[in-house]
Amino acid sequence: MKYKITLSYDGAKFCGWQSQPNGRSVQDTVEAAVFALTGEKTRVTGSGRTDAGVHALAQVAHFSIDKELPCKTVIGGLNAHLPREVRVISADFADDGFDACKSVKKKTYLYVYYTGAQIPLLDGRVWFRPCLDENRMSAAAAELLGTHDFKCFMAAGSGAKTTVRTVYRAEVLRRGDFVFFYIAADGFLYNMVRIIAAQLALIGAGENVDLPSLIAARDRTLAKDTAPACGLYLYSVEYP
Amino acid sequence: MKYKITLSYDGAKFCGWQSQPNGRSVQDTVEAAVFALTGEKTRVTGSGRTDAGVHALAQVAHFSIDKELPCKTVIGGLNAHLPREVRVISADFADDGFDACKSVKKKTYLYVYYTGAQIPLLDGRVWFRPCLDENRMSAAAAELLGTHDFKCFMAAGSGAKTTVRTVYRAEVLRRGDFVFFYIAADGFLYNMVRIIAAQLALIGAGENVDLPSLIAARDRTLAKDTAPACGLYLYSVEYP
Repeated sequence: MKYKITLSYDGAKFCGWQSQPNGRSVQDTVEAAVFALTGEKTRVTGSGRTDAGVHALAQVAHFSIDKELPCKTVIGGLNAHLPREVRVISADFADDGFDACKSVKKKTYLYVYYTGAQIPLLDGRVWFRPCLDENRMSAAAAELLGTHDFKCFMAAGSGAKTTVRTVYRAEVLRRGDFVFFYIAADGFLYNMVRIIAAQLALIGAGENVDLPSLIAARDRTLAKDTAPACGLYLYSVEYP
Repeated sequence: MKYKITLSYDGAKFCGWQSQPNGRSVQDTVEAAVFALTGEKTRVTGSGRTDAGVHALAQVAHFSIDKELPCKTVIGGLNAHLPREVRVISADFADDGFDACKSVKKKTYLYVYYTGAQIPLLDGRVWFRPCLDENRMSAAAAELLGTHDFKCFMAAGSGAKTTVRTVYRAEVLRRGDFVFFYIAADGFLYNMVRIIAAQLALIGAGENVDLPSLIAARDRTLAKDTAPACGLYLYSVEYP
């Protein structure tokens, strides 16, 4: 039986999604819970990696086991074996052809800035930036929409075959002292959202960063900053 | 020089506000920071105690030192010596007669319920309650307004001289999956907000709890539950 599960986790408590020999990854943690529940060793494949510190409101993953368990049992059983910092939100039976990584149609990330005082309750959950002009950010974000070669926003060490991606949504919203940046695309390059979030923060602080010129230049060294992981949330993953 | 400071802290990281021989209290932590900054041992008096796990968005405290430091130096200097889980938000010079505890005119607490999935990022920050009817809660909360003897909502072990308090605001608001309960009064009895928050949760879940009858009975045993500390936030403290 193949299952598709949706997970929520506090990225601060993990070394990231991907299994690592010397770290506490979300993937290893979920695989241990599947083993505790079923006695079966199986690979849990996520929609993609999230780095250390990056949170997930709804990461999607799949795994196959020999046992056939009702979806409700999968949710309750895995949560009983998982630490509180990762929760299974939902579970469904998946078709044989479904692959949480390869079948992705659209992914949405949320980046959260906070312009108020550095309150402890938001520590590790937002990027504290004292002054941001959300209108400037919003206008700049709109320039990301569409299909572009985003090589300028890809961190080194990535093995992506193509750096062309299609951005479906790039929206900046202020709610009180919070500034939210939503970005949806058919896929993201390594550190792409965090590099863009850093450019938007510079723009929001009044600096002149021209995103179309940056994109056209295809040169990572022109977009130097990377926003901290703690402000980044994997918001949703969609499939056909 | 007497200073009035406003503090924000993550209650999960402390055994509460009040200094304790075998616990890590906010009070001790702030006093240690004042000593590190000024070399002076002094008492830091809060507007009141907060229990272990209770958060503060804006706790107010005062302390007196021999040195005269600009308020900006007090903020920056204390924050440099404080752990990240407690921050000084503001500092002002206070009159000799000012007492952060005795001069309180009005205090506001916020209690946060969450009706959605138990997502890890809200762990220790809200009370997870799957179903709440905010309209029922709102109507019940309104019955708290005014001057009443709130003995029924006072936990044992309190040495309050009078159990009469005046409630100025008692409002329930839903924002998505969050339900916020704001309550402002001239003062609160021990565990009063958490006991009321538990009654409102019962009411929101469809139970018949009549707050006016409870209040009239003046009997704590009739209002048994106490909502968990993690959903409670000291929201503001006002002075004449």
